[in-house]
Amino acid sequence: MEGYQMNGGGNHNYSQVGNGGSGIRSRHASGDGDDDGYNGTKGVGYTTPFYLANQAPTSLRGDGYGGGGVLKYSPLAPNKDNGIQSHNYEPDESEVWRAYVAQVHFSNRGHWWTTGKKRALKRWVLTFVIGVIQAVVATLCNLASKKLTERKFDHVYDLLSESVHHSSISSEAGGVSGAADDLFQTDDAAKGGTDSEAGGSHSWFGGSSAFVMFVFYQTIYAAIASLFVMWEPVSAGSGIPEIKCFLNGIDLPRFVRVKTLFCKAVGVAFSVAAGLPVGKEGPMVHSGAVVAAGISQGKTKFWGVDTSFSKFSDFRNDREKRDFVACGAAAGVASAFGAPIGGVLFSLEEGASYWSTKLTWRAFFCAMTTISTLFAIRNVDSWWGQANVEKLFSFGEFNSLSGDASNFSIWELTFFVIIGCLGGLIGAVFNAANEHLTIWRMKRINFSPTRRFLEVIVISVIVSTVSFVMPLLWNRCTQLPTDIQDWSNQEKNLVEALVPFRCQPGKEYNEVASLIFTEADVAIKQLFHFREVGVDDTSTFSSGALFFFFIPYITLATLVYGIAVPSGLFVPSLLSGAAFGRLCGHLLHKLDHTNGTFADSGTYALMGAAAVLGGMARMTISLTVILLEATGDMQYVLPLMLTLMSARFTGNVFNEGLYDIHIHLKNIPFLEPEVPPIAERNEIVAGQVMSTEVKCLRPVERAGVVYDLLRSCSHGTFPIVDTESGGTLYGTASRSMLCTLLQRRAFGSPDVLNDEVASHEGVCESLGPRRLSPLVQWDTIERAYPRYPTIGDVEMRDGDRNCWLDLRPYANTAPYTVNETASIQRTYRLFRTLGLRFLCVVNHNNQVVGIITRKDLLPESLTHSLLRGRNAHANDEVTNFL
Amino acid sequence: MEGYQMNGGGNHNYSQVGNGGSGIRSRHASGDGDDDGYNGTKGVGYTTPFYLANQAPTSLRGDGYGGGGVLKYSPLAPNKDNGIQSHNYEPDESEVWRAYVAQVHFSNRGHWWTTGKKRALKRWVLTFVIGVIQAVVATLCNLASKKLTERKFDHVYDLLSESVHHSSISSEAGGVSGAADDLFQTDDAAKGGTDSEAGGSHSWFGGSSAFVMFVFYQTIYAAIASLFVMWEPVSAGSGIPEIKCFLNGIDLPRFVRVKTLFCKAVGVAFSVAAGLPVGKEGPMVHSGAVVAAGISQGKTKFWGVDTSFSKFSDFRNDREKRDFVACGAAAGVASAFGAPIGGVLFSLEEGASYWSTKLTWRAFFCAMTTISTLFAIRNVDSWWGQANVEKLFSFGEFNSLSGDASNFSIWELTFFVIIGCLGGLIGAVFNAANEHLTIWRMKRINFSPTRRFLEVIVISVIVSTVSFVMPLLWNRCTQLPTDIQDWSNQEKNLVEALVPFRCQPGKEYNEVASLIFTEADVAIKQLFHFREVGVDDTSTFSSGALFFFFIPYITLATLVYGIAVPSGLFVPSLLSGAAFGRLCGHLLHKLDHTNGTFADSGTYALMGAAAVLGGMARMTISLTVILLEATGDMQYVLPLMLTLMSARFTGNVFNEGLYDIHIHLKNIPFLEPEVPPIAERNEIVAGQVMSTEVKCLRPVERAGVVYDLLRSCSHGTFPIVDTESGGTLYGTASRSMLCTLLQRRAFGSPDVLNDEVASHEGVCESLGPRRLSPLVQWDTIERAYPRYPTIGDVEMRDGDRNCWLDLRPYANTAPYTVNETASIQRTYRLFRTLGLRFLCVVNHNNQVVGIITRKDLLPESLTHSLLRGRNAHANDEVTNFL
Repeated sequence: MEGYQMNGGGNHNYSQVGNGGSGIRSRHASGDGDDDGYNGTKGVGYTTPFYLANQAPTSLRGDGYGGGGVLKYSPLAPNKDNGIQSHNYEPDESEVWRAYVAQVHFSNRGHWWTTGKKRALKRWVLTFVIGVIQAVVATLCNLASKKLTERKFDHVYDLLSESVHHSSISSEAGGVSGAADDLFQTDDAAKGGTDSEAGGSHSWFGGSSAFVMFVFYQTIYAAIASLFVMWEPVSAGSGIPEIKCFLNGIDLPRFVRVKTLFCKAVGVAFSVAAGLPVGKEGPMVHSGAVVAAGISQGKTKFWGVDTSFSKFSDFRNDREKRDFVACGAAAGVASAFGAPIGGVLFSLEEGASYWSTKLTWRAFFCAMTTISTLFAIRNVDSWWGQANVEKLFSFGEFNSLSGDASNFSIWELTFFVIIGCLGGLIGAVFNAANEHLTIWRMKRINFSPTRRFLEVIVISVIVSTVSFVMPLLWNRCTQLPTDIQDWSNQEKNLVEALVPFRCQPGKEYNEVASLIFTEADVAIKQLFHFREVGVDDTSTFSSGALFFFFIPYITLATLVYGIAVPSGLFVPSLLSGAAFGRLCGHLLHKLDHTNGTFADSGTYALMGAAAVLGGMARMTISLTVILLEATGDMQYVLPLMLTLMSARFTGNVFNEGLYDIHIHLKNIPFLEPEVPPIAERNEIVAGQVMSTEVKCLRPVERAGVVYDLLRSCSHGTFPIVDTESGGTLYGTASRSMLCTLLQRRAFGSPDVLNDEVASHEGVCESLGPRRLSPLVQWDTIERAYPRYPTIGDVEMRDGDRNCWLDLRPYANTAPYTVNETASIQRTYRLFRTLGLRFLCVVNHNNQVVGIITRKDLLPESLTHSLLRGRNAHANDEVTNFL
Repeated sequence: MEGYQMNGGGNHNYSQVGNGGSGIRSRHASGDGDDDGYNGTKGVGYTTPFYLANQAPTSLRGDGYGGGGVLKYSPLAPNKDNGIQSHNYEPDESEVWRAYVAQVHFSNRGHWWTTGKKRALKRWVLTFVIGVIQAVVATLCNLASKKLTERKFDHVYDLLSESVHHSSISSEAGGVSGAADDLFQTDDAAKGGTDSEAGGSHSWFGGSSAFVMFVFYQTIYAAIASLFVMWEPVSAGSGIPEIKCFLNGIDLPRFVRVKTLFCKAVGVAFSVAAGLPVGKEGPMVHSGAVVAAGISQGKTKFWGVDTSFSKFSDFRNDREKRDFVACGAAAGVASAFGAPIGGVLFSLEEGASYWSTKLTWRAFFCAMTTISTLFAIRNVDSWWGQANVEKLFSFGEFNSLSGDASNFSIWELTFFVIIGCLGGLIGAVFNAANEHLTIWRMKRINFSPTRRFLEVIVISVIVSTVSFVMPLLWNRCTQLPTDIQDWSNQEKNLVEALVPFRCQPGKEYNEVASLIFTEADVAIKQLFHFREVGVDDTSTFSSGALFFFFIPYITLATLVYGIAVPSGLFVPSLLSGAAFGRLCGHLLHKLDHTNGTFADSGTYALMGAAAVLGGMARMTISLTVILLEATGDMQYVLPLMLTLMSARFTGNVFNEGLYDIHIHLKNIPFLEPEVPPIAERNEIVAGQVMSTEVKCLRPVERAGVVYDLLRSCSHGTFPIVDTESGGTLYGTASRSMLCTLLQRRAFGSPDVLNDEVASHEGVCESLGPRRLSPLVQWDTIERAYPRYPTIGDVEMRDGDRNCWLDLRPYANTAPYTVNETASIQRTYRLFRTLGLRFLCVVNHNNQVVGIITRKDLLPESLTHSLLRGRNAHANDEVTNFL
């Protein structure tokens, strides 16, 4: 087993070798590897079937993901990992690939209408289709959640009015006051909580049954949403962290399946209708991503559809899929917030490393198509006339309060900065609390589907109870605003949406109930757009009501994010933030009693919403644009920028954004856009962080050797080294390609060359021009994407084991390499910017000394590498230069 | 001279070698180079002082730019090139660099307040300062052009009213009608043109003298603007193409100097005041870039300032400078259009290849600072009250016409697409005309400063004459709108700005004069915001007037762009486009006579402006946001997206964007974001496009050899090859570093090792651990940035020629390399994405076979490489695979 080891010198690792050498550490180290490794083994002969590398005792490797990539169905790799692989954005540039590309272009060569143009057109057509379908999906999802919510409230209101009727028999005086009386009694019943269901006096049956029905509906809805998650676990949560990972180059299993889309879209309709503090915006972005992946790939296991017959099947590779998913995410944001540009920026901000100008335009086009379709659908009754702006802006349109004057004065910008900082703080607390909760949940609940389901039920009951009790506790009726003749339609509609919970309908309303017993979008609009009427104490929403709503709501939101239902975070953050911001405005009103345009409540609500959302998600530029597009007034550009920037700065002092926290908790090898600080602060080179467990192949190899190698490990890529020239890197071969070759039996006869000749003289030279020319075409290999044959599908007959597999036509002869002396900054930049799956580390003689995958570049791995190599390294520095 | 040639076999190039080989073309080719090159010369000995590569007869190289980089002050390189170099974004990772970095981080190691954090803080502080200063510069520039324009018009109006007075003596009836009569006479005089200045009857002296004074003022202003350009030629034009190049990685000489800023800012104030159809937006973006570069580098030759003493001097390298310039450009757009987010997107769209998330936030912060400062300055009188929205939106605020309804209906979106297509056509014609004009100009005018100056004078006279004659020809007075009580302040102000050229002031106005005799910004606002009064024929601006204005104005704009004054293109495009769009709206009014909200003229003017600007510049997402921010109504997001997208698509069918056209005409090696189509269509590998004129050095080299090499060529980078190990790539050395080493005499004694030992045994091994350890520190080398010593500054004494220069501690041991078999797509992506200056092409043994610089990747070079190698290549393909 010592035969073809890389870095043959036992367990030494790179930096230890460098320690003893002169200043030109790397050269000596490489010489070392050369002598101990290939030169030494040349004489030993070809006794070992494959080149097992030494197991570094401190190695972090072998646990699954990264370029080494554990295929989860591999019989040899115990299925303990999360099956996460990296995307492969670069085609393997082998000779068969080149031949395929040449052939594809050949048919239209010389014509104006080239293959490239054809493909570009197809790409645009698909992008258009994605945009339209995402708009339809979003409309259906919105409709479903609206109908479900209506059904719930209809039933509950029916029961409430029944109880009104019931009590009005006894007190004929007036139905309205009777209802009020009755609800006072309901109040007591509700305080009794869930255990009061068993018995109770008949007089408050109606109110009590309304409460029971309310809890029942909400819990059933939540349970249904949770069942969808049980069916497809990936559809839980908001999906934004997963999209970030996907655009980062990580292939999360089942993330872009049609089944996931179905569960997510239907599930979120139920979870929103269940009255949980969740939004449907995040899931809608996810749905855009799935639609894009589905349409572009045209192949689904769920429905059994496969459009391979059509002309639209040549986008089946990781790069095209990623590009389409980026477009789909933009379309998703566009459909969720009516913010097409915000959508493009969202995709940009999340996937900034590889973004290209062409892709920007496609995302732009996709978002535009979605929003056009949405407009067309929403305004189907007014195609020929003016559209209603309420339908254009998700969160209602802000207007100038007084003609040409802005809604804020320059010096108020300082308040916006303060609100931003406070929002950052709130967001940081929210994130920290949710992080601890999630860790607890992972330990105690997440391993068992039953527990997850029960958790949903329990939390839903808690949320429903709190939601019903809070308006009851808010023991006050507020007069509806009266002189609203000059108000805009938007404001009039909002007045109608106020809920007369225990008060006279048409005259009074319950402030807290108006925020809870409506859809979250409407509640946000109310906070954004209600002008203040009356003096401080009798505002549309009083300070007390806002505070009384804000605290429980944000607490529940913290509790809910992470349970097994599809749930977005944008709306809860915006809603609680709007309440917080409006509260800040009220406090400022104490300073200035003019009640004029100073500290306009709506403006402060918007800033509060931005601050809390920014403090939670830490996005800046895309969030600014999304909020601008959703509210429609450009005068807020500067205030929003200031608020979001200060929220981000403040929050970052304490912790990361919530999405990043969840990515890290899920243990996903996410590469941050910037080099980790540890690498900035310390001097680490590629040779220190690389994994030395490299398993190599020769350019021409026995089929049996390849088979055994594939069975023995789960690496995704194998370097091919030239044993004749001292082990220089010849190219790389991917696992999927090797499996296909074995499956298709692309072997040459074992008699082509003698084994001893092979080992002593060098396989390739002996074969010479008689090489076994490509037996499998590139498109044959790629047709199976993304479900390549696995080693388990390969049947290896004994007679085949000695056949020769000529890998040369299939090898990627120009893989990205990095010299072992390259700094980690440079390596990281190369890896992250080009979205690589693996990076061969070579010495000055182009001999493979190691391989770097995604996992090796995570901060933890870097810290580990640094500790391993620090002493050696530090000495080196000091001796030479200091 | 045959000694150390690379690819020793005469004039063969890569693809010819590959032709004869087996399928593994590259390996054999590399073997070839190996045998003919280094192995062969080992025995010959070290007779040639440096390794001259063979001059491929078909080589495109040797003309100056790219990574090979001609330093224009080099005494050996005849100064025929344009002195353009590439930026170097990657630090040369040598041992001295590592030592420097370690030392820098060492002082704060272990502390919370690390060096990295310190530097980040400094970066933010500098970004803030840049934002503030750019706001001040923009304000001053605006103020200057306003004052100059006012002065011009004051004087001309004085003369006009003098003439009114003059004629009113004879006809006492009414001054107004008298003035009108007089101006009718002036009309005749003006028709006579410039040659009527000599004589004429006394009665129309006043009008005539007003005309003369008008032409005189405008021409003097234009001449002054032109003089600034004569002083600093780089300050001509808009500066946007140059910024694109700078962000693309091209170091244009003198582009970010303080002198350039001064000339550009003052010059553009004059050229705008000269009444030329130019805008100050482009120059303002350029000014932002210069401010950023100046502040971040803290070193100017123009003022003799150097802040090296301060703590802010550690951003002196190409990467930091580029980042700051990107932020500055964002700030420039923010100050030009009041569009901070548009500014960030502008920088993103132009520099998308290397954009990082961190940089986005810095640009965001910079733009935000600028816009805050601008708001604070503009609203200095209303800090404590509401700001005027007119001051927030550069092109005035759009408002909903009728309450909650949008200003367009869904089906009008199709019209917007049509307008977009028409705008794309207009833009394409504009671009084509300007391209031909520029080519003519380059041949006939641009070589002589005198001719350029005279051209400005002539064109200024033509523009002034046309400007004066057009309103005279428009022989109609229009009634001012009367019932404007319910109009907004913005509209009332615009009514006041209408010009009563030959009509009764206060009652009538001349439509064409109102568009010409005001500042361009005001004219745009008029076209955007005037509501239509009366029936079709008597609109605020009639169809005829719009047409009569549009055609000459856009013609003049085509003529003017490219003359020797600082001139932007945004405003002329917007203004002519607004006229065009309003005209389209009028045509639609013929369809529907309701004169209601259908086809709102202002909306169509905005779409027209977007279409023409989009058709000219072909930017999409940044332009959408800029226009949204400058007009303040988010309901236009979808119409603008549709219009700009269709303008871009239509325009791209015919030609490129104007900025790209100018970049290509200037022969700048600009790398497009995407791989050129020629490379997509054909199969080209790195080995075909590389330049084989590589000049190499050994790791330890005689000082004289280095000196002679540097004098003999002008390359910017030299590979260092290891002659002992068959010529493998050891690292690279930059010209600046070599010059510094020679200048500082960092030599070892010539006696350290014998010449014969050196050549036969290998220099490095003989020196062994006794190597001449680093005599010059990294910061000593970099302190001179960006004006490194040149070889002309080096004095080489005869005694020094034999001294040994140990390059090993200074060599970049991990340069980016690419295998010669890598496809051009992959090579291009690597080069462009990482912003490289050069890329070493190596074979499988890591021997240098060529070098790729920016120039080699341009479409022309690729076409050339393809023609050179096609036959060989095609055969290869066919034999093996087809």
